[in-house]
Amino acid sequence: MDKSCALGIDLGATDIKAALVDRTGKILRRDAQPTRAELGPDAVIDRIVELIDRLRTGAPSLQSKGGGPKRANGSEHPTHKPDIVAVGIGAPGPLSPSRGIVFKAANLPKWRNVALRDRIAERIGLPVVMENDANAAAYGEYRHANDKSLQDLVLLTLGSGIGAGTILGGRIFHGHFENASEWGHMIVEPNGRPCTCGQLGCLERYASAGAIARTIVAQIERGQSSSLAGCVRAGEAVTSVDVAAAAQAGDALAQTVWDEACRYLAVACINIQHAVNPQSILLGGGMSAAGDFLLNPVRRHTEAMRWKLHDDHPDIALAQLGNDAGTIGAALLAWDSLDT
Amino acid sequence: MDKSCALGIDLGATDIKAALVDRTGKILRRDAQPTRAELGPDAVIDRIVELIDRLRTGAPSLQSKGGGPKRANGSEHPTHKPDIVAVGIGAPGPLSPSRGIVFKAANLPKWRNVALRDRIAERIGLPVVMENDANAAAYGEYRHANDKSLQDLVLLTLGSGIGAGTILGGRIFHGHFENASEWGHMIVEPNGRPCTCGQLGCLERYASAGAIARTIVAQIERGQSSSLAGCVRAGEAVTSVDVAAAAQAGDALAQTVWDEACRYLAVACINIQHAVNPQSILLGGGMSAAGDFLLNPVRRHTEAMRWKLHDDHPDIALAQLGNDAGTIGAALLAWDSLDT
Repeated sequence: MDKSCALGIDLGATDIKAALVDRTGKILRRDAQPTRAELGPDAVIDRIVELIDRLRTGAPSLQSKGGGPKRANGSEHPTHKPDIVAVGIGAPGPLSPSRGIVFKAANLPKWRNVALRDRIAERIGLPVVMENDANAAAYGEYRHANDKSLQDLVLLTLGSGIGAGTILGGRIFHGHFENASEWGHMIVEPNGRPCTCGQLGCLERYASAGAIARTIVAQIERGQSSSLAGCVRAGEAVTSVDVAAAAQAGDALAQTVWDEACRYLAVACINIQHAVNPQSILLGGGMSAAGDFLLNPVRRHTEAMRWKLHDDHPDIALAQLGNDAGTIGAALLAWDSLDT
Repeated sequence: MDKSCALGIDLGATDIKAALVDRTGKILRRDAQPTRAELGPDAVIDRIVELIDRLRTGAPSLQSKGGGPKRANGSEHPTHKPDIVAVGIGAPGPLSPSRGIVFKAANLPKWRNVALRDRIAERIGLPVVMENDANAAAYGEYRHANDKSLQDLVLLTLGSGIGAGTILGGRIFHGHFENASEWGHMIVEPNGRPCTCGQLGCLERYASAGAIARTIVAQIERGQSSSLAGCVRAGEAVTSVDVAAAAQAGDALAQTVWDEACRYLAVACINIQHAVNPQSILLGGGMSAAGDFLLNPVRRHTEAMRWKLHDDHPDIALAQLGNDAGTIGAALLAWDSLDT
């Protein structure tokens, strides 16, 4: 690897993803390993450092099949030692980017006021910045957008929960307590379904990939018929991708469950419009793999439900970077930190 | 009047309020007249200009009783001609502050793309700025606050509807389409009560002074007992102030209706916390006259309902300027416009 790069980390509940990223946002190499969140913060920090060391030394990616270096897209050169200038970490919140502390994370057991940024920096001897994972992903999407007039956007990452990041005037919007843009925990049904965060009726209980899967499993277990009933009875995991596929194949229960999630996403889009009035709302995360089958009903419901007092509305669109948004955004924030 | 001042206008559905305001935000003189919104925009603009002319010429306020000048607070000197340097207008939205156009206003019939700012400026020959009425009020509260570290706040004005203004970093936050912070039209009950804006389930249908009055009247008409039943049967108007008084006197129905509104305000506070994460959320408008009888249950419900992942929360407090917030804020924005 003959040019310098930043290393972006995306710390998820299941996997730690990493990428070496050049100054333009192009990925030079990817790697990942399981988070093993159940082992607690010390073990997870060890695993993050291991992953960083593997990328620093140019060791073969553990993602590669058959033990050989992964060269699938022609941009991976694992046998060269890269020149890593800084590291960016996207982590689940609530957290403080300015202090580098993860206060608590719904999906990472035993994390409580963990000084993640400084603990990593001490171990690796490189400058480290830390950001909310969805904020980092939103920044990645913002920097990637072809439309350079796009300066105000909200990204919703529809995964096991719903993460969200807001870019205003080309910068991540943090809010006074650095925990703005937690749209997944907007209450959309007062006294509604209990959320892991302690509230009732949060958006992510109705409109995330996780919620869709849980809802259809519960309905099937209550005796509703569906083409997915066999999987459920066999104890196989059902994902939002399965539900989308079943709905597209004509499964009535899957269609109802998918459409209900899209209606709640439309409520979210309307509330985001009224709250921060962005130019664009991007739908990302696992559910967005459904493409137009997600986008079109969300747009249709939003149009049908929103106010008629004014015609200038945020555009609703699909995010572009898929699973790379978080690592690219974190790496670009690391690059930015060197410029200031 | 021996010093220069800006003139602040607060254009409401019922009254046009005006005030002469010095550079520090102190009111030197007030005046007002009925809006007569039913006559349409041309007539309303005439009435705004009349009000401005009355204040410019030092004519006696029409608000004064017995024909004499009003000197109640010792700060009104109507016989001197004031030196007005600029005019600020707070108007109901959606509107464009930068272009000075009111697109449409739910409570002002026949308003459609009215170039309010320039039409007033042409008539009076003074610099005019225009702002969303609740944004102007929020700016007034921001400038009035004793705590100079308070730079990020949201004001909710609880009146016939719910207006809202957001201050971020000491500046009004407008959003890309200049219609951010319409918290009154956040959907809090999908498929809920119809709103004049065209949506279903908007916050202002559940938690405004108007909603409280309509709700208790409807319950009484359905046969529920209340100390306010006599008024309702006599066809007298019931206000949120009456409901608060009845609730404080032990009326069970009034207590239920008031508490329901406070619970929806708590949902709003939680969603505002997660969206823009301000330092403070201020409750203003007619309902805030109830003081702690409003503030305490909103705080209690918010505390009970919000997430437990993080302890740094916006403070919830009562707004301080009452009915003067809009005129003071508009006048201070007029002052600011001279400095740029």
